[in-house]
Amino acid sequence: MSNKKQKLTEISEIGEFGLIEHITKDIKINHKNTIKGVGDDAAVIDHGDIYSVVTTDLLVEGIHFNLIYTPLKHLGYKAVVVNLSDVYAMNATPKHITVSIAISKKFAIEHVEQIYEGINLACEQYNVDLVGGDTSSSLTGLAISVTAIGEAKKEDITYRSTANKNDIVCVTGNLGGAYMGLQLLEREKEIFKTNPDFNPSLEGNDYILQRQLKPEARRDVIEILKELDLKPTSMIDISDGLSSETLHICNKSNVGCKIFQDKIPIDLNTEKMAEEFNIDPLVAALNGGEDYELLFTIDITDLEKIKNHTMIHPIGHITDIEHGAVLITTSGQSIALQAQGWNQMKEE
Amino acid sequence: MSNKKQKLTEISEIGEFGLIEHITKDIKINHKNTIKGVGDDAAVIDHGDIYSVVTTDLLVEGIHFNLIYTPLKHLGYKAVVVNLSDVYAMNATPKHITVSIAISKKFAIEHVEQIYEGINLACEQYNVDLVGGDTSSSLTGLAISVTAIGEAKKEDITYRSTANKNDIVCVTGNLGGAYMGLQLLEREKEIFKTNPDFNPSLEGNDYILQRQLKPEARRDVIEILKELDLKPTSMIDISDGLSSETLHICNKSNVGCKIFQDKIPIDLNTEKMAEEFNIDPLVAALNGGEDYELLFTIDITDLEKIKNHTMIHPIGHITDIEHGAVLITTSGQSIALQAQGWNQMKEE
Repeated sequence: MSNKKQKLTEISEIGEFGLIEHITKDIKINHKNTIKGVGDDAAVIDHGDIYSVVTTDLLVEGIHFNLIYTPLKHLGYKAVVVNLSDVYAMNATPKHITVSIAISKKFAIEHVEQIYEGINLACEQYNVDLVGGDTSSSLTGLAISVTAIGEAKKEDITYRSTANKNDIVCVTGNLGGAYMGLQLLEREKEIFKTNPDFNPSLEGNDYILQRQLKPEARRDVIEILKELDLKPTSMIDISDGLSSETLHICNKSNVGCKIFQDKIPIDLNTEKMAEEFNIDPLVAALNGGEDYELLFTIDITDLEKIKNHTMIHPIGHITDIEHGAVLITTSGQSIALQAQGWNQMKEE
Repeated sequence: MSNKKQKLTEISEIGEFGLIEHITKDIKINHKNTIKGVGDDAAVIDHGDIYSVVTTDLLVEGIHFNLIYTPLKHLGYKAVVVNLSDVYAMNATPKHITVSIAISKKFAIEHVEQIYEGINLACEQYNVDLVGGDTSSSLTGLAISVTAIGEAKKEDITYRSTANKNDIVCVTGNLGGAYMGLQLLEREKEIFKTNPDFNPSLEGNDYILQRQLKPEARRDVIEILKELDLKPTSMIDISDGLSSETLHICNKSNVGCKIFQDKIPIDLNTEKMAEEFNIDPLVAALNGGEDYELLFTIDITDLEKIKNHTMIHPIGHITDIEHGAVLITTSGQSIALQAQGWNQMKEE
């Protein structure tokens, strides 16, 4: 590599978000039909009445998944779903994906078939066409890159940057499950490594395991919002944990927020496993990530519309920026939200 | 990994093209606006009068590039250009790209900056907006995934599958240079490995080195074709070598072709280096790949239009499928074209 003598700065010093900010700060946009570039769940391109949204993710073996406990079919499914989740987070409908994979020699055709079984299943479930891709060798592990393209009417697109004071903050489903599933898989892996005859005790934990290994994107929520004629004022999907995503909305919208601990939805299975691990389930919900739920804000006058929808939970409200983004604990304390997120680059 | 007991088939048994065919054979297309899925330089999506084309490539360290001799800035530039080349090959204009990178700990911020300098330069040169992406860690080397999205009028899109009997086969620029550049770089690398004090003798070989390290896409050709009001009957870009790409057009169009050896454009620098390496320059042109020139067919009545354009070379014509795809050598022999291509998966 070049510039060996130059003083170098380790990426861990600024982390993933810092790096993204650093490399995107000089990006220039030249085309009038580029409505939104870097900085939301997906880019937005104007095609007349219909806007296209584009999002992409690169999953790398050993970083985003561990093949010791990840079935290849699930991996293919998840690689698609995490991208569709970003499309839904724009209040758009995914229509097309491309998939590139790089595979090392340890993979046989049957392995690739399993990955594509999962990819095709996700395409079927979410009514998405696989329209292209690239297949290549890798000297080391497996890498999967998916790009998803969706569509929405111009007026339906929902950004991160448009939350307003007094809006209600809502989250779908429940949080922290995918993180607890990961903890369980990691624990059983460690035991298995020291004792290969050991039978992993995963029984009874289907829910959190599925949250981790075969997550779903909230297509249903987007459909419900349409039925309710309810357009969120802002929206993002939860891939890095509630804290991190709430801060994204607050930072991009120049607002603060109050999130109430006792309103954050956590499944009983998640709580049970958290207890077993001596982890505060709140931490799993705030910082665990990979739940692929939707976090959005609605105008307070729309609150009535969601009251019969048990999967949508009001968890707080938007405030002036001066009040910061805070969590109000069960005991009434106010704690600043922090973007711990799933920051692999700082973890290293 | 699962299914350890299953009988497994090594990917090398069928190669990259075989694998792609295998995993794409069951793909179903559900959306009416998916005009073209897998099987051309790019996918085509209908957005009314304007069609979008989408293409993606995943470049992996040690397979597609070697950082010993690849400047990171050039790498970023090339990663974009190879995708733009696919967009031009659809007779479309690239407008947007997304870039995902996975980087291991050996990379510092300054290295990532260099990659993005190249990416941004390519965006500037080709008037393309970088609109999204993903940044993540990698346990091993560097991986770059680029998706390019372009636009064309519905009637301008040019596929691989629409060549007709008696059409003239044309190729732009010259062929084999990128391959000879790679041979030179690989040779100097080997010498350098045994003697680190050795100074690589790359001087005077700028042309073929640039062809390998910093190739350009043929935006100029697409513009000239528009000026000439000339729509090719079929088109593809040359990433895997003239043989392989010619066969793609013939197979997809159900035609044969005659390509004449003495018409294949080869630069003097390429010939010189081929001589030094005892490589037949014809082999470099047919099977070398990475030239990113355009290969297209035109109706014979359009031949007049290109005669003053020295960068466009008629090299043969389309025949009935029964005659096969053949090369007519300088001595008059007829040899079947073979898709050696740049088939990493079979090489391993």
